[in-house]
Amino acid sequence: MNTIVDQSVIDLENPDNFELGGFADHNTPLIKDCWYVAALTHEVSREVVSKRLLGIDVALYRTLAGKAVAVRNRCPHRSFPLSKGKLEGDVLVCGYHGMAFNPSGHCVKMPALPIVPTHADVRSFPVVEKGPLVWIWLGHPDRADESLIPDTEWLASPQWKTVNGFFPIKADYVSMHENLLDQTHFPFLHPGAIGTPEYARSKLDARMDGDSVVIDRALLNSPPPGVYAMPTGLAGKPVDRFSEARFVSPALHRAFARIVDNNDPSGKPRTYRFNITHIFTPETNQSMHYWWFCSRDFKHDDAAIDEHLSTASAKAYKEDVDALEWIMDNILKDAEPQFDLHFAPDKPGLMMRQSLYRLAMAEAGQIS
Amino acid sequence: MNTIVDQSVIDLENPDNFELGGFADHNTPLIKDCWYVAALTHEVSREVVSKRLLGIDVALYRTLAGKAVAVRNRCPHRSFPLSKGKLEGDVLVCGYHGMAFNPSGHCVKMPALPIVPTHADVRSFPVVEKGPLVWIWLGHPDRADESLIPDTEWLASPQWKTVNGFFPIKADYVSMHENLLDQTHFPFLHPGAIGTPEYARSKLDARMDGDSVVIDRALLNSPPPGVYAMPTGLAGKPVDRFSEARFVSPALHRAFARIVDNNDPSGKPRTYRFNITHIFTPETNQSMHYWWFCSRDFKHDDAAIDEHLSTASAKAYKEDVDALEWIMDNILKDAEPQFDLHFAPDKPGLMMRQSLYRLAMAEAGQIS
Amino acid sequence: MNTIVDQSVIDLENPDNFELGGFADHNTPLIKDCWYVAALTHEVSREVVSKRLLGIDVALYRTLAGKAVAVRNRCPHRSFPLSKGKLEGDVLVCGYHGMAFNPSGHCVKMPALPIVPTHADVRSFPVVEKGPLVWIWLGHPDRADESLIPDTEWLASPQWKTVNGFFPIKADYVSMHENLLDQTHFPFLHPGAIGTPEYARSKLDARMDGDSVVIDRALLNSPPPGVYAMPTGLAGKPVDRFSEARFVSPALHRAFARIVDNNDPSGKPRTYRFNITHIFTPETNQSMHYWWFCSRDFKHDDAAIDEHLSTASAKAYKEDVDALEWIMDNILKDAEPQFDLHFAPDKPGLMMRQSLYRLAMAEAGQIS
Repeated sequence: MNTIVDQSVIDLENPDNFELGGFADHNTPLIKDCWYVAALTHEVSREVVSKRLLGIDVALYRTLAGKAVAVRNRCPHRSFPLSKGKLEGDVLVCGYHGMAFNPSGHCVKMPALPIVPTHADVRSFPVVEKGPLVWIWLGHPDRADESLIPDTEWLASPQWKTVNGFFPIKADYVSMHENLLDQTHFPFLHPGAIGTPEYARSKLDARMDGDSVVIDRALLNSPPPGVYAMPTGLAGKPVDRFSEARFVSPALHRAFARIVDNNDPSGKPRTYRFNITHIFTPETNQSMHYWWFCSRDFKHDDAAIDEHLSTASAKAYKEDVDALEWIMDNILKDAEPQFDLHFAPDKPGLMMRQSLYRLAMAEAGQIS
Repeated sequence: MNTIVDQSVIDLENPDNFELGGFADHNTPLIKDCWYVAALTHEVSREVVSKRLLGIDVALYRTLAGKAVAVRNRCPHRSFPLSKGKLEGDVLVCGYHGMAFNPSGHCVKMPALPIVPTHADVRSFPVVEKGPLVWIWLGHPDRADESLIPDTEWLASPQWKTVNGFFPIKADYVSMHENLLDQTHFPFLHPGAIGTPEYARSKLDARMDGDSVVIDRALLNSPPPGVYAMPTGLAGKPVDRFSEARFVSPALHRAFARIVDNNDPSGKPRTYRFNITHIFTPETNQSMHYWWFCSRDFKHDDAAIDEHLSTASAKAYKEDVDALEWIMDNILKDAEPQFDLHFAPDKPGLMMRQSLYRLAMAEAGQIS
Repeated sequence: MNTIVDQSVIDLENPDNFELGGFADHNTPLIKDCWYVAALTHEVSREVVSKRLLGIDVALYRTLAGKAVAVRNRCPHRSFPLSKGKLEGDVLVCGYHGMAFNPSGHCVKMPALPIVPTHADVRSFPVVEKGPLVWIWLGHPDRADESLIPDTEWLASPQWKTVNGFFPIKADYVSMHENLLDQTHFPFLHPGAIGTPEYARSKLDARMDGDSVVIDRALLNSPPPGVYAMPTGLAGKPVDRFSEARFVSPALHRAFARIVDNNDPSGKPRTYRFNITHIFTPETNQSMHYWWFCSRDFKHDDAAIDEHLSTASAKAYKEDVDALEWIMDNILKDAEPQFDLHFAPDKPGLMMRQSLYRLAMAEAGQIS
């Protein structure tokens, strides 16, 4: 993969580099057959809330037994938003005519009728909770295989301590995934914080792993960047740094970092781990919900570290959010088309965009 | 018509139930050959105002002799809004070049020209005042027959005392007409106020009367609902209740209610009458002007009753307004289509929507 | 040209009056092969700013040597707005990946690459400063002939004293040009200030001069209007007034006025000159940047005159701005089409609109 830093512009026509086919962007149809995060668990309660996910308005609530439920937020009778209705036990009652639906979406009562109508259901969506995340399947229900939910066990494990945050973003989720697979922007968009010049120039290895894209990177004998220096207490000390950035699915990017101090006072190498979790759910083609999590496997009870990681992460991700919103605005308002240039370091992002494009086109094929 | 409560879902394919043809909705072309209310009489004065009616901006003013005038609010020369000009006597003078129009819309002066140009008129609209209402005809002028103005004489009669209010609504007028022909939503959208469980289950009779739709309903020996109990002083007392709800035209829905107390202290049955008048003028396909009036034929001078009816009506109609705006927003933003389910109690509303659809299609035929 | 005040409605079908072809309006494609004003010189500095010009977002800055530079405000790599980046010397560095461009738009560095990519430039636009104006050429660079920049030397000449102002306008630039070629609106839109009844009725001569339209007007032995009376001190005194209004290009309208006092106390006729400069740059088809300048060749150091001309001009031009925005809003919202009437005094404006239409169509031909 050294070739990608030895050429200046990617030869997109070369079939050795890229298969035929396009790159997803803000116009590509959204991918429905995928597990997305609908909300954090604490957002789903006995008070019905609604969120627009992949362009569909979804009502979310919790049964008396505590199970999260998701149904289309549009009564099949007269389109009233069900989230404006009320819960009676586990039954969601429409605020317009009292049409009532159980957690499966089946109509159990239509007060104006002497019988319960059949085939008068609201669409319900499979929902699975894992740790702090409420996953939802908005695609074809026959393909809602729970085993496809990507692993985020560290968010619920006592081995890890996590801080997190949320941004609504007026930009497409594709550009956010590309941002995260592209570490050459660190010194420019995030000066000081997470980008060191050495890191930007370090060797990387990008590869496909099924539909996923993985970047491995190693930087030996170099001081850690600002965001990691404080928690580890290793500011200025040469350490080895290993990282894996992974586009897991349209809904998830994760970045695992290991900082290895070979000169720990204990006399043995000590490893500090950070797992960064980025979760995206497109609201529309040009807007998204973005949750981030920063987990570490050491010093769980150090509130100063919590505060540091929370503040530094929120600052850096806000810089990404601003950049992506400026770009989206620029693209949408521009009277002239532009065909973006691609350079060698864009290859991981382009691999991801090809993957998304293939997934979207495959779905379109299933539909037609 | 008992059949409509004995079946759960209307068989829309059955020609015995419905003629062939569609149902009007927020996309159906607006109906122009109809008298609409442009404003209340007190809104039209020597100060020129403008309103968008059926998508057309209309300037309204009153002549020195007091006659209401309506012309297109767009100068035929350079499209300046005439409502930004000024009145000189009965002549409306454009604020851009001084082009002047008499109440018939005929140009009577173009200051930059030595002669008055012919065929340089602004379109004027027939206007008729009836009681508090200024009716306007925006359709083909040849068909502006005053006898087609629906009767609302009770709004001007000394036999009646009226309270009223206004809402601008970001929703289509079709959904508002449907709301008013559908009394099964009362207990859910207006709990306590105007819906009693007994009333929602009472027998009703829906029928066409020309292009109109009429629902008659009788409920014997049952206490009146909250909104009527206080004015009549009959809270909790069994009374007979008769009502007629009528979709009169695209511009008007009226509901007449009679409360009959068969045990009046006088020894003779006493009848209390309420006439509710709902007036709609589409602003665009997806927004409207809505005026409501609540008239009673008893206790004219009781200010507490005025206050009660005014407050209770405004509260209930605001609940309708909110519901219709939520539904419109839901429909317009939704990425997925929905084909609403129809149930037996929807039949009066569907009859109305068919009537509107036929009227709209007939007009389209006249145009092409 | 007397004929144009002797007929009421222009015979647009008469080839003696008008060549075949249309009139530009707010839907006509914008004309790119033209010098426009991007900004005033003081707006362009070492702080990068952006403006939308003809629908294109342009980043503007000044080199260390003081030369104004304009490039497309969209990085050719990932569309980041370059105005959000930073200047390093004369080089504009993108805030996303550090891609760096010299004032010609050539990429001089892509930090993530070991070499400088070729053919990775951002489009730069020819820029020429003349007096207070920064002119830009957004059309085909091969046709960017500096000699085509219209003369505005009085804005930089010590012979003249100038006051000026700016308005952003939500209306099309065509309607603004038409407004300025049409002096019959003065008494109505600007009562008192610049329109006298005598002037509106004075003879005028309109003629084409290449792509330009020129109106000459003379009014002898009549008092000057309000805006000119105070600076000259000739209120109420009969003077001769000569004016030339000229549609110079899509970017420029200029009006030269001479007030001649034949009874000056010196015993010799004295001439007072006013040069009014109106500069427009379309932001989009339906919005524009508007700079106005009022220059005089006398009493340079009289601050009261500065204040008077500044206040009176801003007031009058704001009246134009309001009118054009009301008209644009009226046109864009109207559900019914309108075909504007044209009258004899509209002839200069129609000549201009034909000229713009021909220019736009010629450009479209070059493109296809």
